[in-house]
Amino acid sequence: MTTQDDLFQPVIELPEPVRADRYRRLIGLDDIKTRLRKEAMLLADPQRLQLWAEKFHGPEVAATTLFTDRAPLFVFAGDVGCGKSALAESFGCDLADALDLPVYLYRLKLATRGSGLVGEMTALIGAAFEHLHLQGAKSKSTRGINAVSVLVVDEADALVQSRENQQMHHEDRAGVDAFLAGVDSLAGAQVPVLVVLCTNRLGALDPAIMRRAAATFVFDRPDSAQRLTALRHALHGIDVPAATLNRLAELTGPDGTRPGYTYSDLTQRLVPTAVMDAFPDSALTDEILLRTVRAIEPTPIFEENRVAP
Amino acid sequence: MTTQDDLFQPVIELPEPVRADRYRRLIGLDDIKTRLRKEAMLLADPQRLQLWAEKFHGPEVAATTLFTDRAPLFVFAGDVGCGKSALAESFGCDLADALDLPVYLYRLKLATRGSGLVGEMTALIGAAFEHLHLQGAKSKSTRGINAVSVLVVDEADALVQSRENQQMHHEDRAGVDAFLAGVDSLAGAQVPVLVVLCTNRLGALDPAIMRRAAATFVFDRPDSAQRLTALRHALHGIDVPAATLNRLAELTGPDGTRPGYTYSDLTQRLVPTAVMDAFPDSALTDEILLRTVRAIEPTPIFEENRVAP
Amino acid sequence: MTTQDDLFQPVIELPEPVRADRYRRLIGLDDIKTRLRKEAMLLADPQRLQLWAEKFHGPEVAATTLFTDRAPLFVFAGDVGCGKSALAESFGCDLADALDLPVYLYRLKLATRGSGLVGEMTALIGAAFEHLHLQGAKSKSTRGINAVSVLVVDEADALVQSRENQQMHHEDRAGVDAFLAGVDSLAGAQVPVLVVLCTNRLGALDPAIMRRAAATFVFDRPDSAQRLTALRHALHGIDVPAATLNRLAELTGPDGTRPGYTYSDLTQRLVPTAVMDAFPDSALTDEILLRTVRAIEPTPIFEENRVAP
Amino acid sequence: MTTQDDLFQPVIELPEPVRADRYRRLIGLDDIKTRLRKEAMLLADPQRLQLWAEKFHGPEVAATTLFTDRAPLFVFAGDVGCGKSALAESFGCDLADALDLPVYLYRLKLATRGSGLVGEMTALIGAAFEHLHLQGAKSKSTRGINAVSVLVVDEADALVQSRENQQMHHEDRAGVDAFLAGVDSLAGAQVPVLVVLCTNRLGALDPAIMRRAAATFVFDRPDSAQRLTALRHALHGIDVPAATLNRLAELTGPDGTRPGYTYSDLTQRLVPTAVMDAFPDSALTDEILLRTVRAIEPTPIFEENRVAP
Amino acid sequence: MTTQDDLFQPVIELPEPVRADRYRRLIGLDDIKTRLRKEAMLLADPQRLQLWAEKFHGPEVAATTLFTDRAPLFVFAGDVGCGKSALAESFGCDLADALDLPVYLYRLKLATRGSGLVGEMTALIGAAFEHLHLQGAKSKSTRGINAVSVLVVDEADALVQSRENQQMHHEDRAGVDAFLAGVDSLAGAQVPVLVVLCTNRLGALDPAIMRRAAATFVFDRPDSAQRLTALRHALHGIDVPAATLNRLAELTGPDGTRPGYTYSDLTQRLVPTAVMDAFPDSALTDEILLRTVRAIEPTPIFEENRVAP
Amino acid sequence: MTTQDDLFQPVIELPEPVRADRYRRLIGLDDIKTRLRKEAMLLADPQRLQLWAEKFHGPEVAATTLFTDRAPLFVFAGDVGCGKSALAESFGCDLADALDLPVYLYRLKLATRGSGLVGEMTALIGAAFEHLHLQGAKSKSTRGINAVSVLVVDEADALVQSRENQQMHHEDRAGVDAFLAGVDSLAGAQVPVLVVLCTNRLGALDPAIMRRAAATFVFDRPDSAQRLTALRHALHGIDVPAATLNRLAELTGPDGTRPGYTYSDLTQRLVPTAVMDAFPDSALTDEILLRTVRAIEPTPIFEENRVAP
Repeated sequence: MTTQDDLFQPVIELPEPVRADRYRRLIGLDDIKTRLRKEAMLLADPQRLQLWAEKFHGPEVAATTLFTDRAPLFVFAGDVGCGKSALAESFGCDLADALDLPVYLYRLKLATRGSGLVGEMTALIGAAFEHLHLQGAKSKSTRGINAVSVLVVDEADALVQSRENQQMHHEDRAGVDAFLAGVDSLAGAQVPVLVVLCTNRLGALDPAIMRRAAATFVFDRPDSAQRLTALRHALHGIDVPAATLNRLAELTGPDGTRPGYTYSDLTQRLVPTAVMDAFPDSALTDEILLRTVRAIEPTPIFEENRVAP
Repeated sequence: MTTQDDLFQPVIELPEPVRADRYRRLIGLDDIKTRLRKEAMLLADPQRLQLWAEKFHGPEVAATTLFTDRAPLFVFAGDVGCGKSALAESFGCDLADALDLPVYLYRLKLATRGSGLVGEMTALIGAAFEHLHLQGAKSKSTRGINAVSVLVVDEADALVQSRENQQMHHEDRAGVDAFLAGVDSLAGAQVPVLVVLCTNRLGALDPAIMRRAAATFVFDRPDSAQRLTALRHALHGIDVPAATLNRLAELTGPDGTRPGYTYSDLTQRLVPTAVMDAFPDSALTDEILLRTVRAIEPTPIFEENRVAP
Repeated sequence: MTTQDDLFQPVIELPEPVRADRYRRLIGLDDIKTRLRKEAMLLADPQRLQLWAEKFHGPEVAATTLFTDRAPLFVFAGDVGCGKSALAESFGCDLADALDLPVYLYRLKLATRGSGLVGEMTALIGAAFEHLHLQGAKSKSTRGINAVSVLVVDEADALVQSRENQQMHHEDRAGVDAFLAGVDSLAGAQVPVLVVLCTNRLGALDPAIMRRAAATFVFDRPDSAQRLTALRHALHGIDVPAATLNRLAELTGPDGTRPGYTYSDLTQRLVPTAVMDAFPDSALTDEILLRTVRAIEPTPIFEENRVAP
Repeated sequence: MTTQDDLFQPVIELPEPVRADRYRRLIGLDDIKTRLRKEAMLLADPQRLQLWAEKFHGPEVAATTLFTDRAPLFVFAGDVGCGKSALAESFGCDLADALDLPVYLYRLKLATRGSGLVGEMTALIGAAFEHLHLQGAKSKSTRGINAVSVLVVDEADALVQSRENQQMHHEDRAGVDAFLAGVDSLAGAQVPVLVVLCTNRLGALDPAIMRRAAATFVFDRPDSAQRLTALRHALHGIDVPAATLNRLAELTGPDGTRPGYTYSDLTQRLVPTAVMDAFPDSALTDEILLRTVRAIEPTPIFEENRVAP
Repeated sequence: MTTQDDLFQPVIELPEPVRADRYRRLIGLDDIKTRLRKEAMLLADPQRLQLWAEKFHGPEVAATTLFTDRAPLFVFAGDVGCGKSALAESFGCDLADALDLPVYLYRLKLATRGSGLVGEMTALIGAAFEHLHLQGAKSKSTRGINAVSVLVVDEADALVQSRENQQMHHEDRAGVDAFLAGVDSLAGAQVPVLVVLCTNRLGALDPAIMRRAAATFVFDRPDSAQRLTALRHALHGIDVPAATLNRLAELTGPDGTRPGYTYSDLTQRLVPTAVMDAFPDSALTDEILLRTVRAIEPTPIFEENRVAP
Repeated sequence: MTTQDDLFQPVIELPEPVRADRYRRLIGLDDIKTRLRKEAMLLADPQRLQLWAEKFHGPEVAATTLFTDRAPLFVFAGDVGCGKSALAESFGCDLADALDLPVYLYRLKLATRGSGLVGEMTALIGAAFEHLHLQGAKSKSTRGINAVSVLVVDEADALVQSRENQQMHHEDRAGVDAFLAGVDSLAGAQVPVLVVLCTNRLGALDPAIMRRAAATFVFDRPDSAQRLTALRHALHGIDVPAATLNRLAELTGPDGTRPGYTYSDLTQRLVPTAVMDAFPDSALTDEILLRTVRAIEPTPIFEENRVAP
């Protein structure tokens, strides 16, 4: 039998300080943050929608019934290093605060993608959703819900890529179907579970997945202002003139031949490399920062149709 | 041994209220609904055809004998989100009412597409049809039939895609053949069983499947009037001016660069997203609706020949 | 061990009324019917050839010895729905009548195409031919033969497709070889067994198969006159003016963009759909027939080189 | 353990009348027949070569030592139906007569091409050659040889196709290597065993196989004179005017769009079909022959590079 | 269970003389050497970074917190024979000296790339990282660290090639994911472990791998001055005129049609071959050196997109 | 456990007369023969190199240390039939004479290329090199070496083809890596073992293999003079005028449309076929020789990029 440990990374109860902190540091994602909070509120107390309808429109609002068929599925798409996974794994902290309830973070384990035998993937996906169903059922009582669960599927394209692809094997198609069935069953069961798919290959997702998504959010590389903000945060405490910061924000943008830096290029490659250059014997000077930015290539864009690496 | 639970999703006895309701909400499918009801009437009482022939034409109508060789197979084809599966899983409610008999809805399980070993798919399809035979035999008695069964195969292309495809493996071809054999055997047995294949890749079905289909119905994205109707239903109870509804119907149609909205884009994405935008602190205004429609991309069309995602 | 039930569909003793009837209804295939009857006569009593030779030519006719090396193999090729399989499974009724002997109809089972393990196909084909050998031996006695067996391989291309195909696996090639060996062994054993391969992909058959075929018959879609005949038969008993029949025959023919109707398009799709339109409340009128013919697309042609569906 | 029956078709001791007869009927292959007889003579008594050298040239003829390294391998290449296999399986009759010794005909069984597990092919080829070694050893004694063995590998391209092929799997390459090893070991052991590879895809054979071949013989479709001879033989005993025979020979030749008839097209398809046309009620007339030749397409040429059927 | 021996080549405790010597002989890699030493210092004592920040900038330097999320991953990319692997396996000697601690060199074993069953690769990579975690935990105590571990993955592209590749199987993608998970977990655990990926196909690495790399170093073929230095070292002790050395450095450079010599071409092919030419009977003359350089082709460049060899 | 017999063809102790003879008959390979002898001398007594250096140059010759890292790997590349394998399997005779020590010839068995299970190849290659290590260790004693081992890998491209090939499976890449590891380990162990890779697809070898090769020798088809020599040897003892020999050498050369004869074409095909033509009743005349040369096509060149046979 497959246990929780076979299916998921260790389950994390949110809020917890590291992820809460990471959530706060994510810049420029306020729309998504708001939307996710509202969705969780409805899952926690579906009556609220009816109350809203009555308050603003009247007792017979057909739209409230449409939510019944909807899948609690969100797609986070975009380039590597732009915060998709970081948000997916941390927004539960905000939900927990907003609802004053624990939020359980489930991250689908690698093994769920099959560990050898063809056909296993289908079984494992089924088991994973079954597990979430049980968890969801436990989270509901007559007095409302007492917890929310969030399932995060990172690199989701590997799991649910489009059946349009001619080379896809039956097994892969069956995996997509198993996922669709799992998501549909959650939709029917009305349990407090949210599913988030992260992918850097939006175009690779199966249309049947995409049409079920309650919302699809696209995460882009930071623009000039966002880069400036990110750099200012990352260099906080070091005396860098505004002109230098502006110059860095400019130099890390796209030029004709290469893309701009990702968030992680800025915070996990540029600044640490500059620090390492200075360390241990000199200060982190403007010159070091500018030299470093010239030496680091931004992460290449994940191109969906590159024929072969 | 494979049991019913290995082969099918839980069998549902129709009519049941959720599906009956869904059936009623399906717009613009009256021809199909009528045809399916007639087919079921014949399955329930094949004598009716002879009675019809005698009443309108005479005792020796050769055409009545042609029905003996015909397979009770219907193909529902069309884009995702246009009601194929919803109709396939709900029209049994209407049949049940029209015949005043229970209708059993069988939905082929994922596992039937093979759970690992090559060759299993063939065996499982065989078992599934055997099961329906038994069920069909039980449904017949000397006093006529006492139930109808409907087998729905969703995403049927994965199961019965064309053997014209050069890359197809023997096993896959054998799966098509097993399906053909199953359908042919139902045709011969004259049991009250209908088979519905749903696919968004009509061109991918094997010609030998298609030639056996008693009818093939194509489900398209809604046209302007259908979008208007669907929106009016979905926004019922909210005071939206006719001009705004017209504008929404117009904006959700195809333009030169993208397709129009599917039914599910309208009812499961557009309206709920607008609601979520308003909720919990404001009314659903025209402005929100128009803003939302601009933000949502219609589900992409499932293109059969896209080389790779 | 593999038993008869593992290898073949239930064996049918011919003549039996349903197939006899179907045989009679097959239009425009008189040449093939005659040839098959002659071949069976020779299998039943090889002496007849010598008697013929002596009667018409003399005692030393070399040609009579050529029959010894010939394989009792016939290829039925052509589009779906044009009567290949129907004839293959019913001509034994005519043989039975002509010879006044039982004819056993063996139809190769799906499982013979392998049920999982590579290499099995070869073994199963071997077993199938061994079985026919035994049956053939039992059918011969010193007083001549007491039965004829007919092996029908439907969708034969899956089994014996050309080894010219580069993508073919060893196993597949071995399957072709096993079939060749089986056919050759029947040729040598002089037992009363006929083998019929049906395929809609004549070009896909291995040249080594084709050169062994005693005859290859191509089944085409019906021409205008054949369509008229088929429609007249199918609409027998319903008062349809000759002009309407002619119009239907014309409309069901090929136009510049699509092929003409197959036999089964006419008898299993066009007429039943028109009947269903009329049923249960009105007569089958000319208008209904003409409307139906406009609504039904002919079965697409099985194209051998379509790259991917 | 693999036994002789696992590896080979039933071993046949030659001469036997059917094959002897077939050998005699093979037209236009005198050069090959002579060469094969000489090779067998040397295998039977290697001393003869030395005697020949001394008689015609002198005691120190280096060329006689070259035979030691040579593999007893012959390649029969050419189109289907041109006598390759027929000669391969019958020339042993002639050897048996010439040497006054039994000749054992071994035909590699299908199973030798692997019966499921990758890697088995290598093992089975090894076992087959081991078997021939044992047989070859038994055939030698101090008083010379008492038998000759001939191994025939039909459709050899499937077994030993060129490792140049990029798509080839390791296993296939290993099969070629196993065959090379087997042939080389026979060369070293000096046992009376001849190996004949038949193929209709000469270009598909591995160069390492081809360079080992003592001789490669190409079998072509018959030319005009050969067709005339073949037809005259086949129609012997029937009164056909010379003009008609000439006309038939002409009509069965290649024209601009299709190839000429193969030997088997003439003897196993053309003449038997004409006979069947006449049989049982009329004589085989010139008219029937000419009508038949127009109705029969020659076997298509096996084209090595046809992409997919 | 998988043991250390299943996962890694024998673990080597550094420094040891052979590798220390090799480290010293590596020319022109001073930047990389310095950077690696700094990284190790931080792993050994993370407090140093804070001390540095306070000394040069102040107590609140945000950049120091960025190091927490960073993976201890370095990519060594470049052509074969340019010192990637040599440096990866020897820089630990320098670390050991700088830190005065043992450095354990782990080299991922071939078997970790899967030994048969699909899915195993994922499991083995997981086990390897688990092992390093344990080792890392043992290396930490309350008094700081007592050892550093270095994991070297040679030919890393085979393990972590880009999931952009369409032909990649699920299993391969799962391998990349397992590696990402392992590296991320090391980042979180703050244990003294460095991971070095060596590849000659930088473009083949998955972007998700590349974005995690703390640094990517590209190793090029030596330029003219570097070749001269390498040759001078290699020919030390033999009296070669400066003009000849210059001439050799020139001749071993790229010309229009071929690349220049790699380091290993110079030291492991050119000089030893010249020595072997002279040995044992003559001195190594200028003439021999020049003749040898003309006879040896430089190692071809590993081209990522060569279609097939 | 894998035994020596699983891994290698029967090990042969050299010198033995057949191979010694073959070695002597190999024409035009003197450079290679000399180089191999020198390499063996160094393996037998590494001190000799130091002695040479001191004698001709001085005590501090850096180049002598370079030999430590060098792999004892030689690549024999070239067309089939040009003596690669013959030299690889016979040069040990010369080494044995030169060193006055036994030389053990190990030839990697087919099975080492994997006998079914993926992953086995890696294990078997590992086992083979382990075996050679043990053998090598036994061959060394304090008094120097008492034997040399030579490992010959024929058709090496199948084993170690370039990982540049996109279609290559993981397993194949792992095989290359296993081989690299084996060769590197021999280099480190300083045992008297030489490894020779034979291939007719030099371009298919992995660059990582090629850069390790101590030397790569290319074997070409014979030129005009070499053909003349070979023919003169082969026809020794038969009275063939010089003009005829010259004519034969000329006719067997390349013309515009086909390559020249290989050595084996001359000695194993041309001369034996001419002999067979004469035998047993006439002398081998000039006319026969010239006729034969016109009838025999040279072995086609193994072309690496032929798409499919």
